[in-house]
This record gives sequence, C-alpha cells and structure tokens, in this order.
Amino acid sequence: MSAAEYLKAKANVLRLYSIRSTTKAKSGHPTSCLSAAEIMSTLFFKEMNFDQENLDYIDNDEFILSKGHAAPILYAALAEANVIPKEKLMTLREFTSELEGHPVPRVKGIRVGTGSLGQGLAIGVGVAYAKKLLGINRRIYVLLGDGEMAEGSVWEAINFAGRLGLSNITAITDVNRLGQSGPTMYGWDVESYARRIASFDWNVYVCDGHDVDILVKTFEKAKESNKPSFIIAKTVKGKGVSFLENASDRHGKPLTKEEQDKAEKEIMSRIINVDYIPSNFTEATVPARKTTRKFTIDTNYVLGEKIATRAAYGKALQKLGRINTNMIVLDGDVQNSTYTSNFFEEFPERSIQCYIAEQNMVSIAVGLQTQGFDVFLSSFACFLSRAYDQFRMASYSKANLKVTGSHAGVSIGEDGPSQMGLEDLAMFRAIINSVVLYPSDAVSSEKLTCLMANYEGICYLRTSRPATPVIYDNSEDFHIGGSKVLRQSNNDIATVVAAGVTLHEALKAYEELEKENIPVRVIDCYSVKPLDTATLIEAFKETKHLITVEDHYSEGGIGEAVASLGLQPKILAVRKMPHSGPPEMLLAEQGIDADSILKTVKNIME
Amino acid sequence: MSAAEYLKAKANVLRLYSIRSTTKAKSGHPTSCLSAAEIMSTLFFKEMNFDQENLDYIDNDEFILSKGHAAPILYAALAEANVIPKEKLMTLREFTSELEGHPVPRVKGIRVGTGSLGQGLAIGVGVAYAKKLLGINRRIYVLLGDGEMAEGSVWEAINFAGRLGLSNITAITDVNRLGQSGPTMYGWDVESYARRIASFDWNVYVCDGHDVDILVKTFEKAKESNKPSFIIAKTVKGKGVSFLENASDRHGKPLTKEEQDKAEKEIMSRIINVDYIPSNFTEATVPARKTTRKFTIDTNYVLGEKIATRAAYGKALQKLGRINTNMIVLDGDVQNSTYTSNFFEEFPERSIQCYIAEQNMVSIAVGLQTQGFDVFLSSFACFLSRAYDQFRMASYSKANLKVTGSHAGVSIGEDGPSQMGLEDLAMFRAIINSVVLYPSDAVSSEKLTCLMANYEGICYLRTSRPATPVIYDNSEDFHIGGSKVLRQSNNDIATVVAAGVTLHEALKAYEELEKENIPVRVIDCYSVKPLDTATLIEAFKETKHLITVEDHYSEGGIGEAVASLGLQPKILAVRKMPHSGPPEMLLAEQGIDADSILKTVKNIME
Repeated sequence: MSAAEYLKAKANVLRLYSIRSTTKAKSGHPTSCLSAAEIMSTLFFKEMNFDQENLDYIDNDEFILSKGHAAPILYAALAEANVIPKEKLMTLREFTSELEGHPVPRVKGIRVGTGSLGQGLAIGVGVAYAKKLLGINRRIYVLLGDGEMAEGSVWEAINFAGRLGLSNITAITDVNRLGQSGPTMYGWDVESYARRIASFDWNVYVCDGHDVDILVKTFEKAKESNKPSFIIAKTVKGKGVSFLENASDRHGKPLTKEEQDKAEKEIMSRIINVDYIPSNFTEATVPARKTTRKFTIDTNYVLGEKIATRAAYGKALQKLGRINTNMIVLDGDVQNSTYTSNFFEEFPERSIQCYIAEQNMVSIAVGLQTQGFDVFLSSFACFLSRAYDQFRMASYSKANLKVTGSHAGVSIGEDGPSQMGLEDLAMFRAIINSVVLYPSDAVSSEKLTCLMANYEGICYLRTSRPATPVIYDNSEDFHIGGSKVLRQSNNDIATVVAAGVTLHEALKAYEELEKENIPVRVIDCYSVKPLDTATLIEAFKETKHLITVEDHYSEGGIGEAVASLGLQPKILAVRKMPHSGPPEMLLAEQGIDADSILKTVKNIME
Repeated sequence: MSAAEYLKAKANVLRLYSIRSTTKAKSGHPTSCLSAAEIMSTLFFKEMNFDQENLDYIDNDEFILSKGHAAPILYAALAEANVIPKEKLMTLREFTSELEGHPVPRVKGIRVGTGSLGQGLAIGVGVAYAKKLLGINRRIYVLLGDGEMAEGSVWEAINFAGRLGLSNITAITDVNRLGQSGPTMYGWDVESYARRIASFDWNVYVCDGHDVDILVKTFEKAKESNKPSFIIAKTVKGKGVSFLENASDRHGKPLTKEEQDKAEKEIMSRIINVDYIPSNFTEATVPARKTTRKFTIDTNYVLGEKIATRAAYGKALQKLGRINTNMIVLDGDVQNSTYTSNFFEEFPERSIQCYIAEQNMVSIAVGLQTQGFDVFLSSFACFLSRAYDQFRMASYSKANLKVTGSHAGVSIGEDGPSQMGLEDLAMFRAIINSVVLYPSDAVSSEKLTCLMANYEGICYLRTSRPATPVIYDNSEDFHIGGSKVLRQSNNDIATVVAAGVTLHEALKAYEELEKENIPVRVIDCYSVKPLDTATLIEAFKETKHLITVEDHYSEGGIGEAVASLGLQPKILAVRKMPHSGPPEMLLAEQGIDADSILKTVKNIME
C-alpha cells in the first residue's frame, strides 16, 4: 500500500469513528469532522513527529484543534495513534468520560481547552514562542475552521506571529464553506483568505484539503520557510458521506442509526488497512518541566512611605525574575503604567511586548504555560475585560496564569470611566478555581505578588494607581485566604472590611471615630477569593455589624462576597455613573471615602 | 487667506487649546492631540458637512474619535466650530465638567464613549450601516491611533465593512509611530498598514498627515469610491512643538507651565486668523428619532407544554418585529440556536448576520442605536464574554441595547464547559444601570422580551437550552423589578428563590416536600437586576430561611444579589469544574437540582 493509500484509509477510519461516536452520544458535530479527515490523517500519520508514549514531553510536534467542535475526529486520531484506547471513543460526551463535547486537557495530547472559536491560533503562537525560547526544534500545528476566521483574535495572532516571523507554526483552515447557521462570510473564496493572510507576512498555501498527496507536499513546503505558514484547505463539509456532503442544515447534528448504517457502508468500502504504521514516530527526551515554587521576597519599605501598589508590583516582578529564570512577563503596551517596565528593562529576553491586543496576550500566555513557563501578564484592569472569554477558557485549560490589573476603580481620577477597572473583581471571582488578591500598600503588594508566583492556577492581583502609605512592617506575612485585623478592641461596635485604596479610607475613618471614642474594627481583606471566612465570621459575631468598602461596582465584588457568607454587610461600593475628577472627590461621590464610612458607622449606632 | 492657510492656522489653534487645557488639568495626552491637528482641522473645517446648531440630527456627517485619549483636540474642534463654548475647554477633566478625560456622550457632537482602544471603527461601521438603511446620504469619519491597529476588533470591523462595501465610511489612522510604552509594532511602516487593509477590499490612501492640501484631496478621493476608505496618515507625535516632536517618554504627559509658554510661542507664530468660516455648513433636517416604546405581546401557550425559553424568545422577536419597524436584530452565526432565525427569515432587511465576531457585533449595535434603531443582539451567553469590554463601554455610551445570551448554565449538557454561560449574570449585573432578566418558561420569556423592548438602556435576557414546561397563564403580567410567588402558605419554613431551569427544580422539590407536609415558598426571581426587594424581604421575615438556586457560578449571580440585601440565603450554585454529560446529572452534581433543594430544606429543619 502506498503512503497516500494508507493516509486515505486512515482518513476514512477517522470518519467512521467520528460518526459512530456522535451517533452514540446523540449529539456532536460529525459533518465538521468529516471535512477535516484528510487533514487530520496527514497530520497525525505522516506530518507530525511525536512520541505517543510521552505526549506530555515538550520535544514533540504539537497540535491544537481550534475548531473544538470537531473533537470526535481528534479523539479518533489519538486513538488510532494508540494514545487512547479505541473503546474509549464510544464514551464520547458521557458524564464520566474525559472525551468531552469539546476538547479539554483531560486527555493525553490535549494541553488546552478549545471550543470558544478563534482562540487556538494565538495559543499555538504562544507554544511556538515557547519552543523557540527553549531551543526545541519542533512545530506546532493549529487547525482552524473557516467560520472562526471572522474572530479578531485570529487576526491578532496572525499579526503578531507574522511580525515576529515565527517559523515553527503551521496553521490550517478547513474551508468547508458552511458555518452553523449558513454559509460563512467568504464561502469557498479561498483566495480572499490567502490574500488577507499573506498581507500579514505569512507564507500562504491554497490546496485541496481532501487530496492527501497535495497535503503532504504542502506541509513539507510549509516547513522550509522562515515565516509562519498558513494552509488554506478547500474542503467539503460532510465529505465522504454522499448525503451529508455540502448539505445545509446538518451542522451540529449527529446521524440517526439508519443514517449511520448507510454512511458506514460508503466509508467502509474505502478502508483497506487500518493498522498504525508509526512512520513519523520520534522518541521524545525532554519531559514536561516541573517547577518547585517556593519563592520568597524581601521588602525594605519605611512605614508611612507613599508608593503605589502597582509600583511595588513592578519591584516584586523584578526580584522574582532574578530568582525564577522560568518566568516570563507579558504586557499590552502599558508597561510604564503597570510597572512591568522594571522587568522588561532587566530581562528583555523574557519579556514580551504584546502591544494593544489583550486577547492575544492572554492566549499567548496560555500557550507559554503549556511548555512549563511561569507567565505573568498585566494591563489596566478594565482592559482585561477585553479578554474575558480567553480567561474563561483558560480556566478550562487548567492554565497557570498570574494576572495583574492596574488602575482599579474610580481612584484613578481624571482619566474617566473608560480607564477604570470597576468590574474586574466580579469578572475574576467568577472564574472557577481562581484566586483574587488585592494589596493596599507596597509591602502587601510585593508579598501578594510572591504568593501569586507560588500559586499554580489562575491568580488575579488588583493594583491601584494612587500612591498609598506603607502600613505593614517588612516582616509581615500574608497567605492566600488570609486577612489582617488592623484595628480592634473588645468594644468594637462595627467592623470595616476594606482592601486597596478604601482600606486607607477605613483607617482614616478609624482615627476620626477614635477621637469620638467610637471603637471600630478594621480588616484588610487582601484575599478577596478565597475570603478569610473565620476572621470575618468572628468579627461579625463580636461587633454585630460589618461594613464593606470597595472601589468597584457593588455587584460581584467584596461586599457581595462577604454577604454570601451570611454576614449581612452594609455594602459601600460604586453605584453612580463614574466620571472624571480628582480621586478624593470621586471616592466621596461614590460614598466610599473616610467620611462615608464614618457616617455609616454613626448610622449603625442610632 | 487661502483655504490651506486657514486650515493650517486652525490646526494650530487646536494645538494651542490641547496644550492649554491639559496643562491646566495637569493630566492628559497633548502629544497624541498634536499629531492629529491637521487631520482634525481638515475634517472639522473643510471635509465634514454638519449643522453645528443641530448636531443631534442624523443627516449630519459624523465623527468618532476612536483614539479617545486625544479628547482635548476633539473638544477644541467642537469649540472652534461653535458647538461648545471656548471657555469650557479650560474645565477639561474637572469634577463638574462634561469634558471628561476621554470622550463620553455628555457633549453635543459626541454620541459614544471611547477610550478603550479599537472600538471606534466598529461603532462607525454601525453608524454607516444605519445611515444606508435610512437612506441618509451622509458619511461617518473615524479617527484611529496607530497603536490600536493591533486590536482584533479593528480587523473584525475592517473585514465586515470591506465585505459589505460600506462606501460611506472614511477611517483615518494617525500613524505617529509611538505608543504609550514605546514604538508601535509597525512604526512608520505605513505601507504595511496599507497592504493589510487593502487586502480586505478597502480603498487605502497613504498620505502626509500634516499636509492639509494633500489631506483635503485625499478625503475628496475617498468619497468617490464604492468601497469603504482608509487613510493612513503619516504623522509626528508632538508635531508643532519642537521639543515634543517624536520625543519618547512624552505619552500621556501634560506640559509644565514653562513648557506651555515655550510651546505657545512656537504655535502662535503660525496662527494668522482664527475666525470660523463655516464653508462646509449644511442645514440638517432629520431630527434624532424618538421611539415611543409601549409594545405588548400576546402569547398562546398551554400550561405544561414544553418549550425552551430561547425558542419563545425567537417567537417574541418575530412578533415585535411586526409592530416595531424600527427594530434590528443581530446574531453571530448562531441564529438557529438563539432562535433569532425567526426574525431573520421574516425580516431579512432588518437582520444582520455578524458572523463569528462578537466584539464587532456589539459595537455595530452601539453604532446602530446612535441613529435611533432598537437593536437586539444574541449569541450564546458564554460567547458574549468575548465582548465584555464593548458592553462595559456601551454603558458609558449610554447605549440602548437589548442583549440575549442563550445556553445558560450546565443545563446545556453534553457540549461541555466551553459552551456554558456560567458567568453572564456576574458580567451583566456589573454593568452600571443594566437590567438583567431571566425567564423560566415560554410565557415569561416572551413577556420579558417585550419588557426588554420597552426598556431604554442595556438590558440582558438570559435564556436556556432545555425545553421547560409552561407554568404561567398567557394573561400573566411581568415587570422589571418584579418576581412571582408561585407557591406559598402561612406555615412556610423556607423560601426557595430560583429562575430559569432551577425554578422547575424548585417546583419539583416543592411537590416532594408537600407529600411530606413540609411547606415551602417558591419565588420566581425573573428580574435578577433590579431584584424584587420587597417580596424577598417579606419572604425572609415570614419564612426565616432563603435558599437561592441558580445554574451559574456562585460568584456574582442570584445568590450574591439576594445576599447583598442582608437576607442570608443558602446559596446553591455551580461550584465544581463543569464538564460534559446529561443535563440532569450535571444539575445534580452541582447541587442545584430538585433533590439538592429538598435536602437543603431538610437540613434547615434540623
């Protein structure tokens, strides 16, 4: 049997499993699998070099299925490559199966979750970047659908990789003409895709996506360039089953049992030999890198000294960079505001200027961390909302990401609401398994950055623009899920729970109240998720009243987090349309300054 | 004085005001204004036709400053065009001034907020689309920065407008080479921008952005085409002030008073006459369209009939489309899942297929509503997270948007977490002045869609995938801020608060508990924001215990909203890593099914 006959047969085996498993599951996207069958067989059984015994090793060629709804054909390819057992395929989409409806990293050979379209290419760019950094001469392959080519995130990745000349990436788009609800924007106009992508300095190849000879040759050519390569593969949706080919209204619809029987007859006639010949088998020798994260940071601040938490974050990054060579820092052209500039200047080779393209920045970070890097990324808190879908998906990729959002709240002042992070706590709290930290002074900012460095998972740090006085001794310890009781007595009539700039307002209110002999407790709630439940409950029991104060919208922030513990806080938060002005006036207007806290305490007394 | 001399002088007047106002404000981005001075003067005093007395009319040429940080020069242009008083300029960024740090629609001539980069072009595309629909032969001009060209959202808009051949838009990018933290990705490589944009079927013109003669000619040429036009204007950051020109580290930094004096001397020498000659004045005759929104919808469902809320939403859209000709529906290639397909089929001329580009969809909607259209837009709830920044900015644009997210929660089942909307309530609750509605059956879904149609502002409707039984009579009334007490007695020992699929679980639990003579109250909390505070407080007082149940992450959803009222609910919500499986098993696993509710009630009794 010739190589081509072998790849053709394999393609049809992949078709068979894609249909069988989706019909069994009674859901899924068989027609989206069928158009990709020759691309997948050529990739997995000819083009890609990988060690199926050690797919977690990093010196393998890697694959990302950006068109995640074609998951069944990816599972089929992995089964045919002896990575997962073939029996497993028929558990597709079941409650206890790792073979979920869309890929998640519960399966060997799958490092990230996909299924929200338009994210795979940027992740692949991160993987390619990481392999270059590590000197690993392996490629990353990303298969996209044609529908997702409309996503701006795809063009951010094309722009970034083209500019960098990342030559170790091959992207393929499966141009099967049909989206979910009808034809895509460009249908089979493959030249339009080609012209657009080529204009971004990629090698572009247009080919028949069902001709394995041509695919093999095109993949070979793609490797010979010093640019990234994009293959525009013209395909037919539902290819290989006569009644599905190019049929409208068959997106995301499994075959009935009768249809399956009919389809199998057609497909079986084309399968002549299905044994796996690992012609492209390569032994991998570089295991996934495991980092022991037990970093510590020493600070040297003077109590009362005024410094912004964002500036202290920058200093901490720099210190961590010296002790963790595995660390990479990304920023979206705001280094001088987020203070990642400290790191960028000292470690340019481990810094990535992502320009103003936050979605791409987050996905690149996801790609980098799959190769074992500790990735920190920063922007204004408000602009991270640009990549909320990417963060959401990162949680399903079980990614290890250290994220910092600066310029939190109305306390940024004159720049106005477009630059204020007022929904970032809500956003990051609603990411599963996330940690959310919020420093108030330089010492806590550095120490919390270090906690973030030691944490494996998605950790968000919220920093502020204004300089705030140092309130902690350099020896102070912090931990995830902790808090600090800064003021307390046996007679406290209320507890003020705050973090960031409002903590300083709480301390000012405390001073005023003390003059009037009104004792209140003040808690620095620096760990917003998880909360220090025990300390908050104790404060509630002892002082009867909690007041939360935050420079964030009232929804989804500290107040609601505390309220969810049943502690009935009076929530002081941003509730009016924000606008430009001096920070202190804006804090007062929103009722989150010292005076508002003081009045709230007095109201409680009445 | 020649026209060119006049425009040059005007440009320098704009420079003068940009510097004076930012120095007075002690913050702002003067150098980003200076590079755009000739572009702005050519636009405002030669190219654009508008009626400065009636800038709210829709038959004016319109302008969007996508590079919102250059706001001072926009304010200066509006002042020079007698739209706002010149004295006003020196109030820039003050607490009581409408001239905020970045543009917001508190100023005549500014219809949308900008300042989160990369959004202006797509909004402009929406405006251009609207003017075409209305048969208004006026243009929209969008000024972008070169830094924001890295945003994917810009390329989504370029792709969309190019494909449509929207010929009434002229975009200009001010290629001043320098971003915030350093050079942009392409610097002054204007040909790279040109090649990329041209590949998307735009007319592209490269020109000197400081030569008013060339700018005038280029703007003229741009109008003669049946394609959208993009002008790549090569400029110098800080242009016109010797010590600022092309200087690094001057982004976002106002001049000192001494620097201002020096700069003024340079600029003043170039100002020869500053009187406004309204050569391009046009009388506008089409006032902004005001809609009276008092729509009603009749439904005709049978109690117990099973139908998904998303399907009922589709029916409601269709009914509304028949009585509101001002209504436009947008979808991102999921019409057959969100059920906007009903409307698309009946009203193709008022339907916009936005393909898989959610950011662009939202910004186009913002653009359309500035011209008085009632815009409904839909996607899967989870994919709306892609456009969170656009929704955030829409709130500062005071936009009127009717947003529906389908496929809420784990109850979608087998498709898995990438397709589950589990953070949408947190996301939309944390949008200022938003309304969040969540129907449980077909009747409420249609009626809530009608409430949304009648509401002016950002309203979010959350629909579900599974078919659920009709529980409401067709005569039932709903209102924003309302709820329905579905089950109650004088002896209720707890209240279950739910909405959507979990309301049906609550009703099932009620049945089981009733058999055991355990009376509970059941409330349909269909208005998630604002909540029906009075009813919830009453239930808390009467039954002592509230249990909230929601198919959403525990953060930022119904439970926390109720908790924020001080009602100490036991919150049942999604807390485990979601995955594929049958809906009922997933609801059980997350502890939000009938059995979990039943157990929670019994725990309370102990």
